[in-house]
Amino acid sequence: MDCILPRFLNAKIADGSLADLTVAGGRFSAITPAANAAGTPPGAVDLAGQLVLPAFVEGHIHLDTSFYGDVWRPHIPCTNGFDVRERVAFQMRNLEQAAPMEERAKNQLELCVGNGSLAMRSHVMVDAAVGLKHVETILAVRGKYRELIDIQLVAFPQSGIQSSPGTAELLDEALKLGCDLIGGLDPASFDRDVKGHLDVVFGLAEKHGAGIDIHLHDGGTLGLFEIEEIAARSTALGMQGKVAVSHAYALGDISADALAKAGELLAASGVAIMTNAPGNHPFPPVAALRKAGVTVFAGSDNIRDSWWPYGDGDMLNRANMIGYRSGFYEDCQLEAAYDVVSHAGARALGLEGYGIAVGAKADFVALRAEHVPEAVVAVPKERTVYRAGREVVKDGKVVDRAGLTGLPSTGLRSA
Amino acid sequence: MDCILPRFLNAKIADGSLADLTVAGGRFSAITPAANAAGTPPGAVDLAGQLVLPAFVEGHIHLDTSFYGDVWRPHIPCTNGFDVRERVAFQMRNLEQAAPMEERAKNQLELCVGNGSLAMRSHVMVDAAVGLKHVETILAVRGKYRELIDIQLVAFPQSGIQSSPGTAELLDEALKLGCDLIGGLDPASFDRDVKGHLDVVFGLAEKHGAGIDIHLHDGGTLGLFEIEEIAARSTALGMQGKVAVSHAYALGDISADALAKAGELLAASGVAIMTNAPGNHPFPPVAALRKAGVTVFAGSDNIRDSWWPYGDGDMLNRANMIGYRSGFYEDCQLEAAYDVVSHAGARALGLEGYGIAVGAKADFVALRAEHVPEAVVAVPKERTVYRAGREVVKDGKVVDRAGLTGLPSTGLRSA
Repeated sequence: MDCILPRFLNAKIADGSLADLTVAGGRFSAITPAANAAGTPPGAVDLAGQLVLPAFVEGHIHLDTSFYGDVWRPHIPCTNGFDVRERVAFQMRNLEQAAPMEERAKNQLELCVGNGSLAMRSHVMVDAAVGLKHVETILAVRGKYRELIDIQLVAFPQSGIQSSPGTAELLDEALKLGCDLIGGLDPASFDRDVKGHLDVVFGLAEKHGAGIDIHLHDGGTLGLFEIEEIAARSTALGMQGKVAVSHAYALGDISADALAKAGELLAASGVAIMTNAPGNHPFPPVAALRKAGVTVFAGSDNIRDSWWPYGDGDMLNRANMIGYRSGFYEDCQLEAAYDVVSHAGARALGLEGYGIAVGAKADFVALRAEHVPEAVVAVPKERTVYRAGREVVKDGKVVDRAGLTGLPSTGLRSA
Repeated sequence: MDCILPRFLNAKIADGSLADLTVAGGRFSAITPAANAAGTPPGAVDLAGQLVLPAFVEGHIHLDTSFYGDVWRPHIPCTNGFDVRERVAFQMRNLEQAAPMEERAKNQLELCVGNGSLAMRSHVMVDAAVGLKHVETILAVRGKYRELIDIQLVAFPQSGIQSSPGTAELLDEALKLGCDLIGGLDPASFDRDVKGHLDVVFGLAEKHGAGIDIHLHDGGTLGLFEIEEIAARSTALGMQGKVAVSHAYALGDISADALAKAGELLAASGVAIMTNAPGNHPFPPVAALRKAGVTVFAGSDNIRDSWWPYGDGDMLNRANMIGYRSGFYEDCQLEAAYDVVSHAGARALGLEGYGIAVGAKADFVALRAEHVPEAVVAVPKERTVYRAGREVVKDGKVVDRAGLTGLPSTGLRSA
């Protein structure tokens, strides 16, 4: 049998030109100016000028706690402002009644893949009550979806470390089982012990050679102090490029001087910042941090779970939100918003072979837009997604399950 | 010929039940519990449990200045922070090179109708430079689309009144030509003459029996002062329910005490507040104002024009944004976000026969969602839109042009 390499003709690439892309062994083997030959040869797909983007990077999600596709679960009012402990308790009650975790995780994965994300970092809850149950379930789901999407798992102490005795040991076990990173949660406001919390987190990271991604909602100078501590430890342990702070709301509500200092520190210590551009409170200033050399990446965070009802698993729409919330109007700003959900995400996650380039993995999205700025404001939903050069998604639905371990289509209970 | 009344079976209505809707003369003539009879009789459409919502109300748009469907026009940096005069000048340069206004307005109208808005308030620029050209063009477009969407036009002094001599007379003329309301623009920061500006606006409103809708970007105590002036004049002239302030950013950055007082004043004077829930600066607190009895409505505002590149003409997505920006998580809050783009909009615009009720106009949207809260977070794009009981939109595209005056499908130049 002759081997015909997959080719994608007339792809609009980043510089605005049309190119023909050749794929061999799941990677781009050639990118040449569009030949514009008559007809479409066998094995080739005519993209007819569609914009080709590397598949999006979902940098922060919770595969274990979403109710997407499950029955609707109304939210409860916060009794006294937003309280993380109250929310964790509400989540536990909700999860007891929810559809099986594996099914909910699959629903969410297919939503994300359907929107063009082929790499993801998911936090997975570990605490004294649930033990390693969530980790084991999500590890199994990851295995089943391996051919479709690359998933990094963070062992996430959702109920704190000091607050939930036994959690440190469970986190250790979770890393042994296959989690890639160790998480953390508001060392000050949740565990009331910044040093103790970070000692466990960085200790386990060092022991396992794991990365770190810490949830930090603490605001103002308190949150800033914790960021300084995280940066100092990252530098001391030579962990530049392997540590991230998720949310980091503090960076959105400190003075310009303090922010400038924090930006320098984060850049020097190689600590990345994850934001989902939340709707109703301050968040890290994306442009200022990028200018300082900080890697800012993004994620959907929660999708229809006990923390909020929002989320659509669409990282291009997240880029739109990041731009909208940041007052990004100019083309170069809209391109920055897109970079946050793509190349910067790949840097933060340490992905190998990312991009539309010879040698890079042929994981890409094709959609109708003139260029990146238009894609960010228009958020076209009609997308085709290619994994290793194979069409896996058409019109938001996974169409190629050949590589999956006998997975049936998930049955969503609601839209 | 027997007359078979259009019927819509198995519609999910607001109380969560399934109903059969009968339409006569373009209005709902009967709403009864779903009969669940076998088969679908002639003239009937089985909605199969789809959620039925009254068509959305686009409360603030600029039909004359959008580039939607035209070539991409990159934004320019603000030289010294955001400046309205600078933006107006940029807009004038852009408009000189743009596709014909009629074509651009149609593109935008079809976008809005395609997303389910069948009533709209558009501001239309009037100043000494463009004279009544914009008004005449948009009046003509309105005439052509009359059977498809109800459009109120605001004669909008985009270059101020005192700042652009001759504008007062042009506004007078615009109202004679058919504009329904008189607009205004930052009486303090733009025209530097609050009393003079409002004298013209309220004077012309009184003369023509027209409504008022004033653009007010002025923040803090300055904007609040102007709101107080507008409220006082509305009450003095007995114009309760006919006056709106658009944007009213000031309400988002004053003290809680001042806001409480302003809320009472606005409610008592029947002045409505329009917000598009902007991304990166304070905006009117929707929940607090609604609680005070103020009508808060919404609009897309600019769609891909010289003011910003965002906007999709989707008022359900706008409800999502309003909820997201307002921290609305509970079902009742998500319902409030929806109310802003529907019933409250109808109140602000003074629409007759709005809603899913016997006697109301059969202008509605059918989509897949369990209930309003889910519709607001999921923003399903597959919608069918009915005007006077006739299907006019399928999958975002206008499919029934029978009522239109020989309008061809618009040719969008880009996505």
